[in-house]
Amino acid sequence: MKKLDMFGLLKKDMAYIEEELFRSMSGDELIHETSLHLLKAGGKRLRPVFVLLGGKFGEYDLEKLMRVAVPLELIHMASLVHDDVIDDADTRRGQLTVKAKWDNKIAMYTGDYIYAKALDIVSQLPNPLIHQILSKAMVEMSIGEMEQIRDFFNTGQSVRRYMLRIRRKTALLIAVSCQLGAVAAEADSKISSLLYRYGYYVGMAFQIQDDLLDLCGTEKQIGKPPGSDIRQGNITLPVIYALQDLEVRQSLIDELAHIHQLNGQCDVAKAISLIKSSSGISRSEQLATRYINKALEVLAELPDLKIKRNLKDIAHFVTRRSY
Amino acid sequence: MKKLDMFGLLKKDMAYIEEELFRSMSGDELIHETSLHLLKAGGKRLRPVFVLLGGKFGEYDLEKLMRVAVPLELIHMASLVHDDVIDDADTRRGQLTVKAKWDNKIAMYTGDYIYAKALDIVSQLPNPLIHQILSKAMVEMSIGEMEQIRDFFNTGQSVRRYMLRIRRKTALLIAVSCQLGAVAAEADSKISSLLYRYGYYVGMAFQIQDDLLDLCGTEKQIGKPPGSDIRQGNITLPVIYALQDLEVRQSLIDELAHIHQLNGQCDVAKAISLIKSSSGISRSEQLATRYINKALEVLAELPDLKIKRNLKDIAHFVTRRSY
Repeated sequence: MKKLDMFGLLKKDMAYIEEELFRSMSGDELIHETSLHLLKAGGKRLRPVFVLLGGKFGEYDLEKLMRVAVPLELIHMASLVHDDVIDDADTRRGQLTVKAKWDNKIAMYTGDYIYAKALDIVSQLPNPLIHQILSKAMVEMSIGEMEQIRDFFNTGQSVRRYMLRIRRKTALLIAVSCQLGAVAAEADSKISSLLYRYGYYVGMAFQIQDDLLDLCGTEKQIGKPPGSDIRQGNITLPVIYALQDLEVRQSLIDELAHIHQLNGQCDVAKAISLIKSSSGISRSEQLATRYINKALEVLAELPDLKIKRNLKDIAHFVTRRSY
Repeated sequence: MKKLDMFGLLKKDMAYIEEELFRSMSGDELIHETSLHLLKAGGKRLRPVFVLLGGKFGEYDLEKLMRVAVPLELIHMASLVHDDVIDDADTRRGQLTVKAKWDNKIAMYTGDYIYAKALDIVSQLPNPLIHQILSKAMVEMSIGEMEQIRDFFNTGQSVRRYMLRIRRKTALLIAVSCQLGAVAAEADSKISSLLYRYGYYVGMAFQIQDDLLDLCGTEKQIGKPPGSDIRQGNITLPVIYALQDLEVRQSLIDELAHIHQLNGQCDVAKAISLIKSSSGISRSEQLATRYINKALEVLAELPDLKIKRNLKDIAHFVTRRSY
């Protein structure tokens, strides 16, 4: 998958983070092989980018920031491997998943290893606040993952429940990335709180866009077959909105029940076209845009550094991206 | 499963740790239900006991020690839930496992949650050394778990390879429990190193005894059907020694190949009786005793506190226990 490509300013520093990511996963056991396989599949490296940008609001020290940026990307990666076990996904970022190339058990321990390695790297930083923020985010993330399983194929769930879930699953770690960059750089706590809020809004929009792409993107764009969410019973925002649309509601419920019955081992094109024919897509896009606008409002409150341009660009990228 | 019952001195403090363990897992989501289920199954709480005993060598502060003792027990518990996914185990400590009562995916996220919660609790302690020691142990543990999968049914493995595996899988976390009690109590670093070594030797003996019990214990004693290791292909020390015994070697290899072929879905009584008829059991017992003797030698170097009596008792208990 493509990395973000808009950070002339940070290009060199991001290359260093990338090197350190690879160094952190090196070794000669099977676990290193599976971890490197994951790392090589790429990713946008959004969380490290946010850490570095957050760091610009304080005393920018690359070595210190690396010890936050690398762990945050690793925690994200570890959650993806465990996700793939749940989703029974065979491809991710256009590559075979660990669970497909090896098996579920190996994927589980690969995730455990990457989590532990992330903690090992961040443990070199003496500021206890960093550990507290990070561990609280990990607690919430794991609760979110479990609740997601519970809500599979639950067509009665509210928008509010969806929001709570993506907050835990995605927005929190992005918020924390922005915040911890500033904390590691010893920026003012008012600034790190604002960055947290910016990251939270961007993260919410990011996940909504992800859920839209799973319905509207092509396999080439998103690195996995579209409709994966529906197949596994993950009821996302466009689906919840579509279910509120009386024109498609009953047909969509029937279609989802059918997919549930077949454990997702069937064509989901009809469900997708029902959702697309409803107002689900446009209403979701509107909500994502509202979150981005909120993120931009928060930006306005931050000190006027050149780097704010980049934060603005990312915010706009989030809802316009096709990968 | 029974708790250790020899700590009159620490009884009250261990009751507090137990309360805090339960408090840490409380909440009203599914993940709390699965976590409490695990906690209620009990356990010896060996790691918290070691933390408190280690703390007696410095400035004993129960609140601080709790923030190490609870996380260490939780990390141990989390590794057991993930273990049960791998082992396909239905019972543990005489209770249904999470993966049996719910499913593998729920067991995986329950483990992730418990790990995160452990870190959340320890993150309140400002001493970075504690985080460094803990995260390094978690890295090694996860490598050990993965290597164990790799070595399933590998009848060619050496004693050395077994030792490296149980070092990572068990001994390290017990060593770290003893050490971190002293570190949290700000004891001299010479003392915490000695405690680490004591815990390491006790931990090695503990795992060897565990592997012996899986062959020689009753279901009532060990809380799961005996022979579980053989069924899943976990080649333990008594098996490696039995394979060195030319009288049983070939029959045992054939029997293990047969079990492998049937994926452990068969009677393993013949394999167990072959191992029992060899020198595998007595040689393993001897090695466990050698480790305990080493632990006792290390104890002799520690300051002469009353608490040393307890550490000596546990060392003796480890190879004499039947649970």
